[in-house]
Amino acid sequence: MEKKWRTAITQHVGHETYIRGYRLLDLVGNLSFAQAIYLILKGELPTEKESKMMEAMLVSVIDHGIAPPSAIAARAVASGGNSLNVGVAAGVLAFGSAHGGALEDAMKFIQEGVKSGRSVEEIVKEYLENKKPIPGYGHRYYKDFDPRTKRLMDIAKELGFYGPHCKFAEDVEEEISRQKGKRLVLNVDGAIAAIASEMGFDWRLGKGFFIIGRVPGLVAHVYEELTTEKPFSKRLDEETEVEYTGLPPRELPAEFKRV
Amino acid sequence: MEKKWRTAITQHVGHETYIRGYRLLDLVGNLSFAQAIYLILKGELPTEKESKMMEAMLVSVIDHGIAPPSAIAARAVASGGNSLNVGVAAGVLAFGSAHGGALEDAMKFIQEGVKSGRSVEEIVKEYLENKKPIPGYGHRYYKDFDPRTKRLMDIAKELGFYGPHCKFAEDVEEEISRQKGKRLVLNVDGAIAAIASEMGFDWRLGKGFFIIGRVPGLVAHVYEELTTEKPFSKRLDEETEVEYTGLPPRELPAEFKRV
Amino acid sequence: MEKKWRTAITQHVGHETYIRGYRLLDLVGNLSFAQAIYLILKGELPTEKESKMMEAMLVSVIDHGIAPPSAIAARAVASGGNSLNVGVAAGVLAFGSAHGGALEDAMKFIQEGVKSGRSVEEIVKEYLENKKPIPGYGHRYYKDFDPRTKRLMDIAKELGFYGPHCKFAEDVEEEISRQKGKRLVLNVDGAIAAIASEMGFDWRLGKGFFIIGRVPGLVAHVYEELTTEKPFSKRLDEETEVEYTGLPPRELPAEFKRV
Amino acid sequence: MEKKWRTAITQHVGHETYIRGYRLLDLVGNLSFAQAIYLILKGELPTEKESKMMEAMLVSVIDHGIAPPSAIAARAVASGGNSLNVGVAAGVLAFGSAHGGALEDAMKFIQEGVKSGRSVEEIVKEYLENKKPIPGYGHRYYKDFDPRTKRLMDIAKELGFYGPHCKFAEDVEEEISRQKGKRLVLNVDGAIAAIASEMGFDWRLGKGFFIIGRVPGLVAHVYEELTTEKPFSKRLDEETEVEYTGLPPRELPAEFKRV
Repeated sequence: MEKKWRTAITQHVGHETYIRGYRLLDLVGNLSFAQAIYLILKGELPTEKESKMMEAMLVSVIDHGIAPPSAIAARAVASGGNSLNVGVAAGVLAFGSAHGGALEDAMKFIQEGVKSGRSVEEIVKEYLENKKPIPGYGHRYYKDFDPRTKRLMDIAKELGFYGPHCKFAEDVEEEISRQKGKRLVLNVDGAIAAIASEMGFDWRLGKGFFIIGRVPGLVAHVYEELTTEKPFSKRLDEETEVEYTGLPPRELPAEFKRV
Repeated sequence: MEKKWRTAITQHVGHETYIRGYRLLDLVGNLSFAQAIYLILKGELPTEKESKMMEAMLVSVIDHGIAPPSAIAARAVASGGNSLNVGVAAGVLAFGSAHGGALEDAMKFIQEGVKSGRSVEEIVKEYLENKKPIPGYGHRYYKDFDPRTKRLMDIAKELGFYGPHCKFAEDVEEEISRQKGKRLVLNVDGAIAAIASEMGFDWRLGKGFFIIGRVPGLVAHVYEELTTEKPFSKRLDEETEVEYTGLPPRELPAEFKRV
Repeated sequence: MEKKWRTAITQHVGHETYIRGYRLLDLVGNLSFAQAIYLILKGELPTEKESKMMEAMLVSVIDHGIAPPSAIAARAVASGGNSLNVGVAAGVLAFGSAHGGALEDAMKFIQEGVKSGRSVEEIVKEYLENKKPIPGYGHRYYKDFDPRTKRLMDIAKELGFYGPHCKFAEDVEEEISRQKGKRLVLNVDGAIAAIASEMGFDWRLGKGFFIIGRVPGLVAHVYEELTTEKPFSKRLDEETEVEYTGLPPRELPAEFKRV
Repeated sequence: MEKKWRTAITQHVGHETYIRGYRLLDLVGNLSFAQAIYLILKGELPTEKESKMMEAMLVSVIDHGIAPPSAIAARAVASGGNSLNVGVAAGVLAFGSAHGGALEDAMKFIQEGVKSGRSVEEIVKEYLENKKPIPGYGHRYYKDFDPRTKRLMDIAKELGFYGPHCKFAEDVEEEISRQKGKRLVLNVDGAIAAIASEMGFDWRLGKGFFIIGRVPGLVAHVYEELTTEKPFSKRLDEETEVEYTGLPPRELPAEFKRV
């Protein structure tokens, strides 16, 4: 009978652990953490250039402060009196379609765009005409260019990862400008998406880079909450922070009154 | 060989589901939801009085507004672009030792106190001398009595659930006043704890009442967030809401600069 | 400035809690738990018939044994050494599109179908021709009729909730038979979906009924795991339960060997 | 008024992000991922030796196969039809006191042991006499020595991290042998705990190393589940995998029968 639990990731032979075929103990001390991450996700060891690119991409999302929904959720859950893993998990839960999801969507857009062989002009036109947002473009503050994108793209060029996916991503940025008469910058999600696509990663793994890169930030936040803040401190002040938009007090109808 | 997955809760016989031995289809239409909850937790059907008591206890915790950490976490996670179940789960995660945990602790305190046969005077003395907080006592606003406690205790008396555990809980409230010269009211966690103990529930299930009773409130909050608020709206404004307590900007040492 | 945290569910006036405008303390002892659930989800008090229908729907999903992914996840997480709320939350997380999601999809299908005014014949034809599964229909074991559906529909008829949505749902069942020459039964998800639609609930709340109804079952499972099973007992036996589908052991290339 | 949301981790100045005072864009391309993790957790940049030690420790826990509760929970939740982040979060939830918690407990034990100045003989005696398990010692298979411990300790020695905490940890291993007449090996949790203590990390962060190190493994597992397995495939077969330990079918008493 076929087994329900199947995996190609890790195997035990005797008491030894093998990750993608390599003995775990051989990886310890020989691989950097980012190299081991590349191996476990991709199934093969990275080249030196791929290793450097991975390090840069993961570092670029390590934290974005206490403001995003993930940090709020992580710290609120910790504040309820839970241990480190529970707070971190709550933060990871927040990484939905509106929070890290753009990376996945942008990878899909870029990979399908390059594969389709269609012209950038035609693709952008279709999105703009249907008023569909193009994932990976636009930023609240950056109107000219996103400095994080520039940084990552510079590194990608230096390491030889500026291929068709990166070019496609930048061409789309220019084409949006041309057709729309207004610049929507290729943002950091779009940049990571282009480079990860260049490296051959499946778009379904897109959010994985974000999760792996940001978890250390969440660990730092939950640890900070647990060690420096009082339990239950993350509650709102109803007077000043909450707007009640519902019905005013009303009387329970007589037919419901039993006691 | 002994099986790894064992349960005494639910069984399938043919295509029929049996809950604690009763055919599920017989329960549908015949039991109230609270009666079915009693059955699945306790293993036996409730009497009419136990049913009424369960209804009252569960209703008493159904929601406490948007302010607590659980509602914050649930709505922040929903705001990240996740579906209903994910937001609700984040809210349930927040129910740690500082948020609903008092119910469990108070049940343990009351059950061990009654079982020990020790005098209330002695028990309270021990806690006060060691400056240990007594779980289930004290409230930020209510200094004289907690109206929710009064309501539940009135119902418990009417239904015949005012036995040794409830008496112990109220005696402790009086004894604290006497020894401390200051009233710490038996709060609603303490009241539910006393009554649930009276009904024979194990203290390890204490948080279960809170979880079951509050989940409908969390569903309402996450549904409201998903249908009336914009995605990613639950982020902090760093200028006005966040205090940065760390180091000022500093230069990366030269030996780290590779690019 | 508009506030970020807004809610129409619950308000505090002084130290009193009001749920949808009603004083919480008035609800305690007067409303059944299912009635309070109806109130918090719908915003208004239920009639007696709506109350009975709610009780039946919630009881019908209270547990389905230890086999589904939600029970596996809940008990595995508890087995890792976590408290009650954490295990229950893991179970709620499992309620994705393939686990409870059918209820939501079926509500959407039924509500849009009724609202469209299109003929059942046309709607079914479109699905079958496009080989799209119709949510709420079909069952692994029940080929003639689903006894849970019959039970709920009988109660719905008795209580006066057999209106256009229930009729539409049953007509679709017949029409599938006619066009396909094979019966796909209206399953229990479909039945609850039809009745909840009849009661005026938004399909976006569909999974909420499932979550609220099933959480007591999850509490029972996690409590059972924590009190009767050993920590870490929920691990697989790699010899007998796991199939490794990956690469065989291989040597780490020399250029990676630093230590 | 004091602000509720405070952090020393990350700050925005204009549109620039600063991590522990360093401009994020300066870290990208210059720091390895493990170096950035060290920085965000510790507040300061690592030396080259600390960097290498971090890489080794994180790689050593990257995955342990599909068997542990965390992989089961992650894959069961994914199997319910959820996205990548939700499955990964369920896996992180499983990291409770029995799953990764040993690392935290062992760090506490070692740090308090070293700080106390008490003799190893006395400390071990106290634990053995009170039959308290010593966290970080003992292994199901390894009876002589744990090869992962040896590997990490060899690297620690090479890099100069074999100080009082590592010595204490190994002395305890010997002393247990002496007093108990039976060897309990210093396991991999104990080894990481000793080295992390040597590097000056607080024991409350212990589980953080495990979480950060293992999340890539969880991402790989959830991705594999979502892309190679059918939805809802992670359910138990009640006939062969489940033992029902509850009551046999029984009749619902007549007084409950309303319909």
